[in-house]
Amino acid sequence: MALIVQKYGGSSLESAERIRRVAERIVATKKQGHDVVVVCSAMGDTTDELLDLAAQVNPVPPAREMDMLLTAGERISNALVAMAIASFGAEAQSFTGSQAGVLTTERHGNARIVDVTPGRVREALDNGKICLVAGFQGVNRETKDVTTLGRGGSDTTAVALAAALGADVCEIYSDVDGVYTADPRIVPNAQKLDHLSFEEMLELAASGSKILVLRSVEYARAFNVPIRVRSSYSNDPGTLVSGSMEEIPVEEAVLVGVATDNSEAKLTVLGIPDAPGEAAKIFRVLADAEINIDMVIQNISSLEDNRTDITFTCPRADGPRAVELLMKLQHDGTCRNVLYDDQIGKVSLVGAGMKSHPGVTATFCEALRDAGVNIELISTSEIRISVLLRETEVAKSVKALHDAFELGGEEEATVYAGTGR
Amino acid sequence: MALIVQKYGGSSLESAERIRRVAERIVATKKQGHDVVVVCSAMGDTTDELLDLAAQVNPVPPAREMDMLLTAGERISNALVAMAIASFGAEAQSFTGSQAGVLTTERHGNARIVDVTPGRVREALDNGKICLVAGFQGVNRETKDVTTLGRGGSDTTAVALAAALGADVCEIYSDVDGVYTADPRIVPNAQKLDHLSFEEMLELAASGSKILVLRSVEYARAFNVPIRVRSSYSNDPGTLVSGSMEEIPVEEAVLVGVATDNSEAKLTVLGIPDAPGEAAKIFRVLADAEINIDMVIQNISSLEDNRTDITFTCPRADGPRAVELLMKLQHDGTCRNVLYDDQIGKVSLVGAGMKSHPGVTATFCEALRDAGVNIELISTSEIRISVLLRETEVAKSVKALHDAFELGGEEEATVYAGTGR
Repeated sequence: MALIVQKYGGSSLESAERIRRVAERIVATKKQGHDVVVVCSAMGDTTDELLDLAAQVNPVPPAREMDMLLTAGERISNALVAMAIASFGAEAQSFTGSQAGVLTTERHGNARIVDVTPGRVREALDNGKICLVAGFQGVNRETKDVTTLGRGGSDTTAVALAAALGADVCEIYSDVDGVYTADPRIVPNAQKLDHLSFEEMLELAASGSKILVLRSVEYARAFNVPIRVRSSYSNDPGTLVSGSMEEIPVEEAVLVGVATDNSEAKLTVLGIPDAPGEAAKIFRVLADAEINIDMVIQNISSLEDNRTDITFTCPRADGPRAVELLMKLQHDGTCRNVLYDDQIGKVSLVGAGMKSHPGVTATFCEALRDAGVNIELISTSEIRISVLLRETEVAKSVKALHDAFELGGEEEATVYAGTGR
Repeated sequence: MALIVQKYGGSSLESAERIRRVAERIVATKKQGHDVVVVCSAMGDTTDELLDLAAQVNPVPPAREMDMLLTAGERISNALVAMAIASFGAEAQSFTGSQAGVLTTERHGNARIVDVTPGRVREALDNGKICLVAGFQGVNRETKDVTTLGRGGSDTTAVALAAALGADVCEIYSDVDGVYTADPRIVPNAQKLDHLSFEEMLELAASGSKILVLRSVEYARAFNVPIRVRSSYSNDPGTLVSGSMEEIPVEEAVLVGVATDNSEAKLTVLGIPDAPGEAAKIFRVLADAEINIDMVIQNISSLEDNRTDITFTCPRADGPRAVELLMKLQHDGTCRNVLYDDQIGKVSLVGAGMKSHPGVTATFCEALRDAGVNIELISTSEIRISVLLRETEVAKSVKALHDAFELGGEEEATVYAGTGR
């Protein structure tokens, strides 16, 4: 008998009919003799609809009230799933994040889980009940206010609960049936992976893959909670994310896939004096403005004037603000100029196999050369190669890399109309 | 400076635009220097939509989960109103029923308030904030479960809060601008009342008026909380419900209106032995089945066989069940037969003036006689005369009585397209 945590995303819960199908699956899992805890997102587009209503009422709404508003969505879906489970003859009990002991920081709209104390959930499980826990929310111990956890918060709730309860696995259900070697909409012969390590999933998530949010994978790795990514529309076992890449025998280490990210902008700060503290000024200014930085590239300084350039990427929505802040530094003489480019795309190849197979970087660059794609920037980690190129070249690049590394299967991937939610 | 509690019904909150208009009114009230507490129902038809979703998922849903589901509606509207208030530059804080200290019985779907301990609300008021409290809900102290208060629960929340906070008035806002002498859709020259006593409002509510639910008026009377019934669509001061009818000077006591109720069925139990305990059997059987009885009429027993008949009314939905239960008593010999009639209407004349003006009953019966209406049953209280007649005769009867007692104004009532919600 195992303890299984299942998380269902909005598209899996978008109608009364879908809710009943999900309830059937939950009850079937319980009937196999397992303890089952279920985390539900809001139905369909509920969260977006509530955000829209809020914007109509106040374009800059107080964060505390936004959290009170948004958490209604998960409350609704959890109660409905609990009702559906009851109609199949099983016992269910729904919990808000607060009732389930999900304790968070005070930061409304983007709270971090600080602890999970699921005593009431444990008790209900011991009484034979299926437990529904509202995703995306928790409570701040000091203020007793309800908080939401930011985008992908339901995944994080599920993994955090799984860790606190010592679950055997955390199953993340959406309308896609697993992690693919590339987006099948771009590469029709992309294959579904059976397994990948935590580190490889982390790199994919950091490189643009939308299957799981980075935070939930980090949590899973920290607490060693296996994650199974599956579809709620089929019985396909999906993809298992578990174990450290260190555990993968060298001969089995492979490349797991190509990820893309078209959501970033690139900024280059030109002519920074190559002396201690100069780069720090730049990043402190950005950090104080809460602008998230992704890639950072600094190459060696120019021999002529002992100045260097720093390039970094950030979300496009933050680009203009970053430019404005850096222009002030320009006036201070910290740099010569600031270049801005939001037509970029990021393409990343990920896999533990990179460590043990020399020549991956060479093959990578050759594949793009043969496809006539110009690489504008390169940045790597132990198991990832990322490049920036023109956004318009992204699809071509993904196909070229996917073929060059023989990641494709023989058949075209079947259904992939999903949102990943 | 006063403490004012305002309650807004679903139709006053049915869109983002209506919510902003309500927020403007709230902020204007605060700016006059008052402490303001606001109770909001769910937006528009949200509650009905959630009930519908629930029915699709499980026709007989567990009551605890139904309460978790329905309370999402008030959570949404309160958060949105708080946001709108913030956009007008005032400070607002929203509270769930639980956070506001509304403690109830365990009975999901129809819980009763047992206590209100609004410490956090009081503290927020003292800090200059406008407080939003979700209506229709509370929490059960023992189970810590969220409960809902049944139909009209938001009115009850508002009055109970007003009582606990010692408010100067509780304003109930809907889309009708006050209490009328009759339904203006039936009697075009019905007048809006400026004032009526608690007892008169109680009788109107018990006689079918939908303006305020009986429970909230009972609460207001018990704790002496004045209620002002107003429209959120205009600045009309509405109708004030306050004071005991005992305080009304004899010469000022009037008749306040004619109410109708088409929701009941009439049952007559024939041939009950006129001996102690026989009537009790009948009402115990009905009480155990949780069937609410309204009017009860027993006339003197027949001299021939020492048997009597008892007639009572109950909600039409409960009629068939009541018949079934009473048929069993017939088999036991407790009665001879059971008659059932769900084509009845109840028409009631209400007013403190009845006590001091003889001849009201005579005028009442003559008015109906002149209108050609047959009275099937009569039942009275100190300030009310109610009759049962054919449902098809109700409109005609209301007009006849309204004219006979000169309750009409000279003009036709203006806008009355309202739902009263």
